[in-house]
Amino acid sequence: MTQTRDAFENRLRQIGAERYHDKHPFHHLLHGGRCSPEQVRAWVINRYYYQHSIPIKDAAFMSRVEDPDLRRIWRSRIEDHDGTDTNEGGIRRWLRLAEAVGLDRDYVASNRGVLPATRFAVDAYVRFVRDKTLLEAVAASLTELFAPKIHADRIQGLLKNYDFADDSSLSYFRNRLKEAPKDVAFGLSWVLDHADTQEKQDAAAAALIFKTDVLWSQLDALHAAYVEPGRIPPGAWVPGEGMALAKAS
Amino acid sequence: MTQTRDAFENRLRQIGAERYHDKHPFHHLLHGGRCSPEQVRAWVINRYYYQHSIPIKDAAFMSRVEDPDLRRIWRSRIEDHDGTDTNEGGIRRWLRLAEAVGLDRDYVASNRGVLPATRFAVDAYVRFVRDKTLLEAVAASLTELFAPKIHADRIQGLLKNYDFADDSSLSYFRNRLKEAPKDVAFGLSWVLDHADTQEKQDAAAAALIFKTDVLWSQLDALHAAYVEPGRIPPGAWVPGEGMALAKAS
Repeated sequence: MTQTRDAFENRLRQIGAERYHDKHPFHHLLHGGRCSPEQVRAWVINRYYYQHSIPIKDAAFMSRVEDPDLRRIWRSRIEDHDGTDTNEGGIRRWLRLAEAVGLDRDYVASNRGVLPATRFAVDAYVRFVRDKTLLEAVAASLTELFAPKIHADRIQGLLKNYDFADDSSLSYFRNRLKEAPKDVAFGLSWVLDHADTQEKQDAAAAALIFKTDVLWSQLDALHAAYVEPGRIPPGAWVPGEGMALAKAS
Repeated sequence: MTQTRDAFENRLRQIGAERYHDKHPFHHLLHGGRCSPEQVRAWVINRYYYQHSIPIKDAAFMSRVEDPDLRRIWRSRIEDHDGTDTNEGGIRRWLRLAEAVGLDRDYVASNRGVLPATRFAVDAYVRFVRDKTLLEAVAASLTELFAPKIHADRIQGLLKNYDFADDSSLSYFRNRLKEAPKDVAFGLSWVLDHADTQEKQDAAAAALIFKTDVLWSQLDALHAAYVEPGRIPPGAWVPGEGMALAKAS
């Protein structure tokens, strides 16, 4: 049976309550100040691969949209990540974080050393958006519904617990707090408008579950490689690699 | 510089020596009899997703081949997995293994409960074969070069250590010992023939590395979920699920 708009919205929010990666133990370690500098670096390197893929995902989406209005609205996501004349953009902000934790910016930008499992999960998301219906693609983006809290927790936890954390290194997260709400308000209302049968509602819910799997898998892989059991797969980043040369002080 | 045929073959074999998943600790536990029944079941469920995807991958390959001779040779791989009038096929053999370890055959065949990370890795392989050059697709299949030893070790280790192991439940592996050598002899010689520039040799080597990552990631995910730290991601198989009803005896 097709759910009412409110009931369907609650169903989507419940998926986040049960499966969003704010509940992953790695985030508890990170935000609680219990990550070693190397573990923070591993997170920065691997999460960069996700950041780097988001505008590619958004371009894949736009490449399938016939409606110029929808493309125009969606384009701001690419601008937020890739930057404009007046906005540095999220990708460069993330590389600022990489430098703040001691990594070489070019090393991180090269995506060398990214865990294969990170690549497989993130690439699955890009392909999902390329292959599935537009409704499923927009629904998958709705993990942003659950992001403001994790970004606020992260800013607070990193500032409190790590020397590298300051306004410059954390600017990525502060900007996402401003940018994400407009994206997700649009995305949510678009999904609620377009999921007008049970079949579409089920597909949209499954897409959001898929996306929570993409996020969770990345942390599972990070945790397994660098925390417990701490077995780094062949070819992935090894602590000490990719460090910035010490600056003369 | 383009390598000689022998040097290039050695380079490919060296990739297996360094990165093939026979070196993963999960296989040591499995073959050494140190997996619990639940850990064996988790392996059977997740590895089924890989088995189930291999003929899909091979069909994707054939869909891109213009040469009927190459398609004809390749088709035997699909027959080996999907079966023929006179050959049960690898997929049904794997489901026999699933029943032997106490799982419900239909549950396993449904792919419910497969780890998201398994799906992402295996799907990445199918898409690799769909998207990359034919040379890269064939090169990725060359992990079969390293498989006979692991299959022989597995048959011996499972027979010695687990009650479920007998000729019927292990028939998948025995058959692969017969089938894989002809596939890989063809694949290797095809790759050696076609990788006639340095660029192609590098691409073929990278494809084989990619494939070792696909295999290794699956075991990493399995290990993290069911061995150490033993954290099962949301939605994945939980021990006790998907069991066959006890037979009246």
